[in-house]
Amino acid sequence: MTADQLFKQIREKQSFLCVGLDTDFNIIPRILLKHEYPVFEFNKKIVDATADYVIACKLNLAFYEVLGTAGWVSLEMTVNYIRERYPEIFIIADAKRGDIGNTSKMYAKAFFEKIDFDAITLSPYMGSDSIKPFLEYHDKWVILLVLTSNAGSADFQQIIDQANGTPLFENVLQKSQTWGNQPNLMFVVGATKAEMLKRIREIVPYHFLLVPGIGAQGGQLAQVAEYGFNDRCGLIVNSSRAIIYADCTNDFAKVARYKASEVQEEMSSLLKQFNII
Amino acid sequence: MTADQLFKQIREKQSFLCVGLDTDFNIIPRILLKHEYPVFEFNKKIVDATADYVIACKLNLAFYEVLGTAGWVSLEMTVNYIRERYPEIFIIADAKRGDIGNTSKMYAKAFFEKIDFDAITLSPYMGSDSIKPFLEYHDKWVILLVLTSNAGSADFQQIIDQANGTPLFENVLQKSQTWGNQPNLMFVVGATKAEMLKRIREIVPYHFLLVPGIGAQGGQLAQVAEYGFNDRCGLIVNSSRAIIYADCTNDFAKVARYKASEVQEEMSSLLKQFNII
Repeated sequence: MTADQLFKQIREKQSFLCVGLDTDFNIIPRILLKHEYPVFEFNKKIVDATADYVIACKLNLAFYEVLGTAGWVSLEMTVNYIRERYPEIFIIADAKRGDIGNTSKMYAKAFFEKIDFDAITLSPYMGSDSIKPFLEYHDKWVILLVLTSNAGSADFQQIIDQANGTPLFENVLQKSQTWGNQPNLMFVVGATKAEMLKRIREIVPYHFLLVPGIGAQGGQLAQVAEYGFNDRCGLIVNSSRAIIYADCTNDFAKVARYKASEVQEEMSSLLKQFNII
Repeated sequence: MTADQLFKQIREKQSFLCVGLDTDFNIIPRILLKHEYPVFEFNKKIVDATADYVIACKLNLAFYEVLGTAGWVSLEMTVNYIRERYPEIFIIADAKRGDIGNTSKMYAKAFFEKIDFDAITLSPYMGSDSIKPFLEYHDKWVILLVLTSNAGSADFQQIIDQANGTPLFENVLQKSQTWGNQPNLMFVVGATKAEMLKRIREIVPYHFLLVPGIGAQGGQLAQVAEYGFNDRCGLIVNSSRAIIYADCTNDFAKVARYKASEVQEEMSSLLKQFNII
């Protein structure tokens, strides 16, 4: 998917919402357990219910791997379902991978060929050659961890580099600019650090930023928009638990749709307020 | 598995060799394709052939995920096979995971409960709360990326922290000491940086180090031993391609056994030379 196609969807849906399918087998309504792949059934209903309001779906690999082979089947079925039914939706593997070159090449094949994801989240710790194999896919996207929303992000991401006086996460932003295929690179920036978005926007004015941490992790959408928007939106904001677990009864999909519509409404206002649509 | 059990095995086998099961479906002998799970068949033969000489097996997740569900089945079958047949062997998931707390908790369940790995490699970029859920398993091990063997390791791992004048990888070593469950923490140190092992040993004199990069990546075993040994060995040295793909004919297992025995012989000499056994 191209940035143009992504922006087209943002304009049409008046939304930059990503729904996070962190689907926990132990939380989903018990009625779904009658199906062979309950996690897939849950995802299908969430995607059907929210597709009008979301531009992206993010599947958190941990929640599938914890189920072993059945989890991997549910993952593949979910991606195939979204791809067939909602071809406009941008599908993200939240996998946070990153390894030496020949291993990263295998991960790229796993997530871009074996399963038809549009994008994958990657950890920068191992440097350029751990990321480049993914950037070689010109119709696919790398979403690089820069500044995450958890407390532990302070441990290393904000270490100041003696050589240039900038924090590690800024070094990641800067260096990754030299790794090729710029158009297909996005960055993860935690919403709990909204004021830092301003600085990040100065360094990467044109790139999309994936912002987790709206909802359960306590970010503020208006602040994120103020500091993070560029003239083509430039933001994909994720919400997982606040949408998919808003209700844990058999009405979960209806309530998820309502919750997604609420966020979309706020996003629509913000997109108009900043003259993006 | 405890450190005592690991050292017992090192003494008995006079080895600190880990065989890396980076099993590539496209490279293994074609005769194996008649089996439903060729990758598992290959692994089984490699493990049977090398078990006398290795103390650990490392499964590189990318090579299994690239096969989708069939890969995940092969992964589970391989771990179960090793666990049943060779209970003394230390089984490592080379997964390089790391995410926010509730997601890391899921990954820990996936690799320590759903599949019975002894250890998992993790990336430190997201900090303490991304690692702690794994450290809560007292019979399991975290192997934290510190200094890797690839060229890209220079991009961020060696950035000098303005606050204390030490490189990022040393900060990772230092900070991780405060995360609890010290006995069950190991570190990945690339063999191509043998001279840096000396410095790392000063910071973590008692911990085990997992050293990839012997063989295809060009490290030197004697150098690694000189700088990396402690009085209970303290090293697990991995070799993947140089053993498992030493021969690509139907004799692959026999040749793998021979290659492993060659490395074990060198390791035995080094263990004796340094009065460890």
